[in-house]
Amino acid sequence: MIEQLTAIQPVNKEKGKQVAQYIDTLTKPIGSLGRLEELAIQLGEITGEDFPTVTPPAVITFAADHGIVKEGVSAYPQEVTAQMVLNFLHGGAGINVFSRQIGAKFEIVDVGVASDMEHPGLTSKKVRYGTGNFLVEDAMTRDEVEQALAVGYERAQKMFDEGAKCLIVGEMGIGNTTPSSAITAVLSGKDITELVGSGTGIDSEQIKHKQAVIKRSIEARQADPSDLIDLLAKLGGLEIAAMTGAMLAAAANRLPILLDGFICTVSGLLAAGINENARDYMIVGHRSVEIGHDVAISLLGKKPLLDLGFRLGEGTGAAVAFPILQSATLMLKEMATFASAGVSGKE
Amino acid sequence: MIEQLTAIQPVNKEKGKQVAQYIDTLTKPIGSLGRLEELAIQLGEITGEDFPTVTPPAVITFAADHGIVKEGVSAYPQEVTAQMVLNFLHGGAGINVFSRQIGAKFEIVDVGVASDMEHPGLTSKKVRYGTGNFLVEDAMTRDEVEQALAVGYERAQKMFDEGAKCLIVGEMGIGNTTPSSAITAVLSGKDITELVGSGTGIDSEQIKHKQAVIKRSIEARQADPSDLIDLLAKLGGLEIAAMTGAMLAAAANRLPILLDGFICTVSGLLAAGINENARDYMIVGHRSVEIGHDVAISLLGKKPLLDLGFRLGEGTGAAVAFPILQSATLMLKEMATFASAGVSGKE
Repeated sequence: MIEQLTAIQPVNKEKGKQVAQYIDTLTKPIGSLGRLEELAIQLGEITGEDFPTVTPPAVITFAADHGIVKEGVSAYPQEVTAQMVLNFLHGGAGINVFSRQIGAKFEIVDVGVASDMEHPGLTSKKVRYGTGNFLVEDAMTRDEVEQALAVGYERAQKMFDEGAKCLIVGEMGIGNTTPSSAITAVLSGKDITELVGSGTGIDSEQIKHKQAVIKRSIEARQADPSDLIDLLAKLGGLEIAAMTGAMLAAAANRLPILLDGFICTVSGLLAAGINENARDYMIVGHRSVEIGHDVAISLLGKKPLLDLGFRLGEGTGAAVAFPILQSATLMLKEMATFASAGVSGKE
Repeated sequence: MIEQLTAIQPVNKEKGKQVAQYIDTLTKPIGSLGRLEELAIQLGEITGEDFPTVTPPAVITFAADHGIVKEGVSAYPQEVTAQMVLNFLHGGAGINVFSRQIGAKFEIVDVGVASDMEHPGLTSKKVRYGTGNFLVEDAMTRDEVEQALAVGYERAQKMFDEGAKCLIVGEMGIGNTTPSSAITAVLSGKDITELVGSGTGIDSEQIKHKQAVIKRSIEARQADPSDLIDLLAKLGGLEIAAMTGAMLAAAANRLPILLDGFICTVSGLLAAGINENARDYMIVGHRSVEIGHDVAISLLGKKPLLDLGFRLGEGTGAAVAFPILQSATLMLKEMATFASAGVSGKE
């Protein structure tokens, strides 16, 4: 598996330059479509195509549970993970709504929900019944990390084999801002108070408690920041590893990855850490209100497209941002040039 | 006409409260969809409906010329206005591309291009052949302002009669950041250096020249800021007046107005000045890099949805932002509630 993860080519910078030159022939003042132009150039670099397409996108939402919730770090009880998976399967969650809006191929994958789940619409790839409580034991074994990475890689590869042109991954896992904050703390060296906010809605006393739990967990686990499999095993989550694997598959297929919020961006950091080439395939869809997200985005060296105060997860911020990517591709494909339209240039 | 413009009801705040309460029953942490929730509430207030819809939107792009270009305030020659109108008619401009993307009903209206234009796809409602050079004479007469307002009102009303559910207006008029800056200066009392940037791409010497032309024009015209018809007559533009009229029609029909960039937001300010109730029907689609736009947005008391570095006009920023409005309506209509989905609430 790990060998597969390193088979990622650098993006095609030369194609990006060609796309940039072409954009400057379109009937609009130079640079006047701002980020849309930057996106079109990046999509050219990623796909190597003059006129890249991003439709249909794939939305894969990975669900898993977290042993650390035993320490009272979340506003919601653990059973909400499984209940929300059922909600996804019935089409009633936010990510269902926005996936339909953007015409996405949608899949929900159980990579580690803590209870037995069976449903004809569910892809069951459970690696284990939730992670261990990493305050007192490793979240999982290295072998389980690799299994979860492989689940993500394979589900994404299947989407691409079926024609998906852009990857959105989301997550459902009560408590998963906790491993995300722990991983970001280890990777950034920042104090946990700069990384932990209210999650899905805990109060200031609970935030202090959550910060303390994470700090003690980091001290107890002594993860090696230069060995990301070790970091995932000690402080990670099964859905975090699966999203990482899915992103590496997208990069290997030269397809764009539209990142969602904090947890997803942490997976992006891990994917870029496993293979530095993967970073250039990523676009940050939105800026979450989770304070750790800003740190993760800046570690990744990216700028988010949207800043709408979301903190839902599931892939929702990326799905809502997706039409902007589509606008960038349509600008390239459908706008006339000054020459073809007979429009005069600057005086 | 002016009587018609005052027939705008206040938005339905009570319906907004009901929508807000309903949003808090949806399967997501309270408030976790941020601006999308605020938009849904505003759309409830605007339409008075529990489940507002915004599709199909109308995109109406008004084209007109500006006598002030004789003073050398623009990077492009005046004939580009007519050339770009032809580009719109052939479907090759940015606004065509994004209008198709969002499934908009599209119309291009000549309200004052400086040359004769005939094309089966063009709505010809020319009030005059461009405005006068307002450095030396009024841009137009009060009667011409009212005619241009009426053109906008009637074209928008026709779109609503045909089923459009949201208004996007755009503009094409070489030189039109100049009247927009002049109007914003008069309404805000700010110095012109705080309002005038590079437009579609002039250099710093040209910016100083443009600032000086606007300053002298404002002094020469002595427009009455409490009489917006006077302000439009002395320092306005035909497309600026037409957009204002279209917005008043949308508000009269209880339909949302998604504003584009600087010039469009100036029309929004004028519409809100003519009828204060109109303001609550407006949503700012994006933040332009034109420095005057920030001033206009803050005078209007709004927050833009996107900040992607656009400065193209035509309605493009609003069209690219439109899917976010659609996401807000779909969230309301399609998300399950905690009760219907059997999901537990906070502990």
